[in-house]
Amino acid sequence: MITRMSSLFLRTLREDPADAEVPSHKLLVRAGYVRRVAPGGYSWLPLGLRVLRKVERVVREEMDAMGAQEIQFPALLPREPYEATNRWTEYGPNLFRLKDRKGADYLLGPTHEELFALTVKGEYNSYKDYPVTLYQIQTKYRDEARPRAGILRGREFLMKDSYSFDLTDEGLSASYQAHRDTYIRIFDRLGLDYVIVAATSGAMGGSASEEFLAEAVTGEDTFVRSTGSDYAANVEAVVTPAPPARPLDGLPEARKHHTPDTPTIDSLVTLLNKLDLGREFTAADTLKNVLLKTRQPAAKEWELLAIGLPGDREVDLKRLEASLEPAEVAILEEADFAKNPFLVKGYIGPRALLDNGVRYLVDPRVVTGTSWVTGADERDHHVVDLVAGRDFTPDGTIEAAEVREGDPAPDGKGTLVAARGIEIGHIFQLGRKYADAFALDALGPDSKPIRITMGSYGVGVSRLVAVIAEQSHDELGLIWPRQVAPADVHVVIAGKEDTLRAAGEKLAEDLSAAGLDIILDDRTASPGVKFKDAELVGVPTIVVVGRGLANGVVEVKDRRTGEREEVKVDEVVEHLRALTS
Amino acid sequence: MITRMSSLFLRTLREDPADAEVPSHKLLVRAGYVRRVAPGGYSWLPLGLRVLRKVERVVREEMDAMGAQEIQFPALLPREPYEATNRWTEYGPNLFRLKDRKGADYLLGPTHEELFALTVKGEYNSYKDYPVTLYQIQTKYRDEARPRAGILRGREFLMKDSYSFDLTDEGLSASYQAHRDTYIRIFDRLGLDYVIVAATSGAMGGSASEEFLAEAVTGEDTFVRSTGSDYAANVEAVVTPAPPARPLDGLPEARKHHTPDTPTIDSLVTLLNKLDLGREFTAADTLKNVLLKTRQPAAKEWELLAIGLPGDREVDLKRLEASLEPAEVAILEEADFAKNPFLVKGYIGPRALLDNGVRYLVDPRVVTGTSWVTGADERDHHVVDLVAGRDFTPDGTIEAAEVREGDPAPDGKGTLVAARGIEIGHIFQLGRKYADAFALDALGPDSKPIRITMGSYGVGVSRLVAVIAEQSHDELGLIWPRQVAPADVHVVIAGKEDTLRAAGEKLAEDLSAAGLDIILDDRTASPGVKFKDAELVGVPTIVVVGRGLANGVVEVKDRRTGEREEVKVDEVVEHLRALTS
Repeated sequence: MITRMSSLFLRTLREDPADAEVPSHKLLVRAGYVRRVAPGGYSWLPLGLRVLRKVERVVREEMDAMGAQEIQFPALLPREPYEATNRWTEYGPNLFRLKDRKGADYLLGPTHEELFALTVKGEYNSYKDYPVTLYQIQTKYRDEARPRAGILRGREFLMKDSYSFDLTDEGLSASYQAHRDTYIRIFDRLGLDYVIVAATSGAMGGSASEEFLAEAVTGEDTFVRSTGSDYAANVEAVVTPAPPARPLDGLPEARKHHTPDTPTIDSLVTLLNKLDLGREFTAADTLKNVLLKTRQPAAKEWELLAIGLPGDREVDLKRLEASLEPAEVAILEEADFAKNPFLVKGYIGPRALLDNGVRYLVDPRVVTGTSWVTGADERDHHVVDLVAGRDFTPDGTIEAAEVREGDPAPDGKGTLVAARGIEIGHIFQLGRKYADAFALDALGPDSKPIRITMGSYGVGVSRLVAVIAEQSHDELGLIWPRQVAPADVHVVIAGKEDTLRAAGEKLAEDLSAAGLDIILDDRTASPGVKFKDAELVGVPTIVVVGRGLANGVVEVKDRRTGEREEVKVDEVVEHLRALTS
Repeated sequence: MITRMSSLFLRTLREDPADAEVPSHKLLVRAGYVRRVAPGGYSWLPLGLRVLRKVERVVREEMDAMGAQEIQFPALLPREPYEATNRWTEYGPNLFRLKDRKGADYLLGPTHEELFALTVKGEYNSYKDYPVTLYQIQTKYRDEARPRAGILRGREFLMKDSYSFDLTDEGLSASYQAHRDTYIRIFDRLGLDYVIVAATSGAMGGSASEEFLAEAVTGEDTFVRSTGSDYAANVEAVVTPAPPARPLDGLPEARKHHTPDTPTIDSLVTLLNKLDLGREFTAADTLKNVLLKTRQPAAKEWELLAIGLPGDREVDLKRLEASLEPAEVAILEEADFAKNPFLVKGYIGPRALLDNGVRYLVDPRVVTGTSWVTGADERDHHVVDLVAGRDFTPDGTIEAAEVREGDPAPDGKGTLVAARGIEIGHIFQLGRKYADAFALDALGPDSKPIRITMGSYGVGVSRLVAVIAEQSHDELGLIWPRQVAPADVHVVIAGKEDTLRAAGEKLAEDLSAAGLDIILDDRTASPGVKFKDAELVGVPTIVVVGRGLANGVVEVKDRRTGEREEVKVDEVVEHLRALTS
């Protein structure tokens, strides 16, 4: 196929668009791949649509290869199924809601768990029908508070979402693993640099959720990775390595000290070091007890929760919430303190908590045999050498403390460093939440119902176009991997002479006949303009039909490396076919 | 590719869905191609999606072949461009409107004229850039008052819409003709029976608009066709053949008669025939004058309009409105009569109209030299022998009278009969309406702006799946044309013996290796169930691997004709490859 620049609906821009911050946004607009139509809404121009379709094809081929079956749902969906799972409300302002002419409530689907669960329930009923994995490649809508970065974070975007339906937890694990393998194949074929990060701490059993993040300094998602292994995780998912428990024998007794005017950990440490207790204290020697309240879904009453963590660490609210999910968390109010007079503000210690039945969870570093300076449950007093496992026994541990660069990696290899990325895929073991909401059961061999367990898996198809551009460009323009390039070869006729033009046309036709997709720059523009556009557009191989023609050669340029070589005209078709296959 | 029925996400239904009235709706649901999700909202199950994609591919191939360039717009669009053309309001309740989180108005695009015009304006500016034709295959939304017939008339549907941009009227005509030819190729490839009907009377110059209607007794659109030629038209577009003018010489003089108590044409005719005027009168001899008022777009004042038509015909409001477009039309109110005392209700005649400056348009049958009985502009009186061209000269003619079966066809060949169809395509010379709204100009060779002229062209892609089903089925199920069938061959293993199963599996693999797409019924179900499902699903060729295998043959059945033949196992791959290519 030959695409002629003389008639192609493409006008490149010399200037970056005013609203563009990241390279992919700038270049995709400048090279005429996309145009902004509304906040977070973009049109795909011919070259952009080609790249999008090629990315989509890679995703489809790999989904089909894993045995997933493609179906397609509407984007305009009725409220009821989303009401049943409470997502109509939970989504808040991120959901586009509308009414039809009869006043019935509708939404524009952000994801389709409800519809897939209902559809499987409608078609299947025997255990023999399972497992099944269904997917769609479909336009999705999310009313982002701050659409930005072009097609990287739009409000209308193309997504592959798939859903697995299994009879057992082991089945779900297998479906999850199959998706994980498939995603690796997809992102490898697209030539992406990416990491797979744990998205939850694994409390639900193994890797219940992982994100595929494309590495990009401009990425919105932060994560941590190890300097010593390929470990990577969302901050919420980092598991704190617990030191080994220590022997209790011979540890000094706990002693109460008068510690007035120590409103902060720093002031407490300063005071302790003045007390001449025979050693030097740091904030890490103190045990800070943070009081919160939590409420389980559907519960009416709030419950007190105390979190004990080393005084040199803050509570990371996102990690805390992830640990407590699906319960709500709130800060204590004055009224709560008034109701619980054993809580001596600023001097709360484990003893009063445990004596009064307050649930008490500690940072994993607080293991048996560790000694702490902590509140004495008495105004102006702290206890020194309160030993975990001897003087108090918490109700368990919790991941709530902030993660810092330099912390040891959970796998024991290296330390953690922070990094940024763009989410390109997400795999998630949903479990039975949606099956419960819709009573999705299979009739078992014993005629008893088996509740189905689900997984949900997403790939941002349109976003991938921007991510590839983000990872693959230079100061001159885009550099597409062959797999998704809008053409195989960009032929530039560098001159106005009839012989050049005729040779360029013939070369394009020969290449097209050989099965290659060609962009042919047959415009009357100057060679300089054409070269610039070719670099900007980013087809991986550029062929220049120019002065060398007199000597029977054309120039073949590798867009990525910039390497040029002269190839004889009568060998160039074979040369390019070998290069592009 | 082999699709196994044992794992295919497909459950056929024995019963028609309760809400289905037309065959395509019943069969597409029963055969597991689509499922209803909401009023006018359907999901595509695996086989349905395959057919949809194949129809889409045919449309895309032909659009590309005509040189149209594919792009894609969002479905979620801002209000402003539609406000500029007044379509935000004009669409009324058919438009899905919504607000985003900031309260800004959006709509779900029903068609994209505005966006295409703006995009071309954004990219192009020289006359050298034109002509250009752009298209998209994209999901559209229309809040139908009565979504029905499954995917035939949904609220969310897939459409190919294209737009041509030309510098001249001749260019637009050429673009229009290119689309017409392309649509013929598309619908021919899909094996459809269809007619091309004139959609407007041609007042805008030639065939400014035509519809492609698939013939179907269940169709929602009525049209007329000629018994003597291939003429076909929407009722709105029928042009009434005018009889030749007659000589005025020797016609009797107009005379006023007392005609009390003649509130209807029938009572008037009865009275006339009692007056013994030397001839027999019929309703067709009377000239009925219907008073209306019209208002041009953007005008404030209404203007009186009188329509004169033979008394045996009613005004067809749709035809009237089509003739007066874009002006509004309304019935006169009492106040209007009070303001214009020369209008003597029941006795209005051409004279008072013309004397008082009322615009007066007549049916094309009212030619010079025709004599009429009509109102005398005086209570209880009519005039007989009022002659057009002698006693009154109307301001022009108008197509407003009803069209009847038996009327002569406009092309002079045969008479008109009514027929029904389903709109599958529409081609329309828009002219400069949208270019005017957005000042879409090209800079001409003389540096003066040239206002662009547009055409818009649509094909209902998802609807086509239903239309094909509507035209191609029998009492057993669907019968797909090869071009869009969900598979090439449906192989049924008719029995549980291992040898049958092994032979069926091998045959499917050999056929797949030969490049055919196979549905393999490898289920444990009875042969009867499998045969029924194969007929219902409608793949054009069914191969039964059954008892004949002992004699080295399988049965090859043509789904459409029902013909069966026995083919030797070692010849069947070649046989089927020849059959399906």
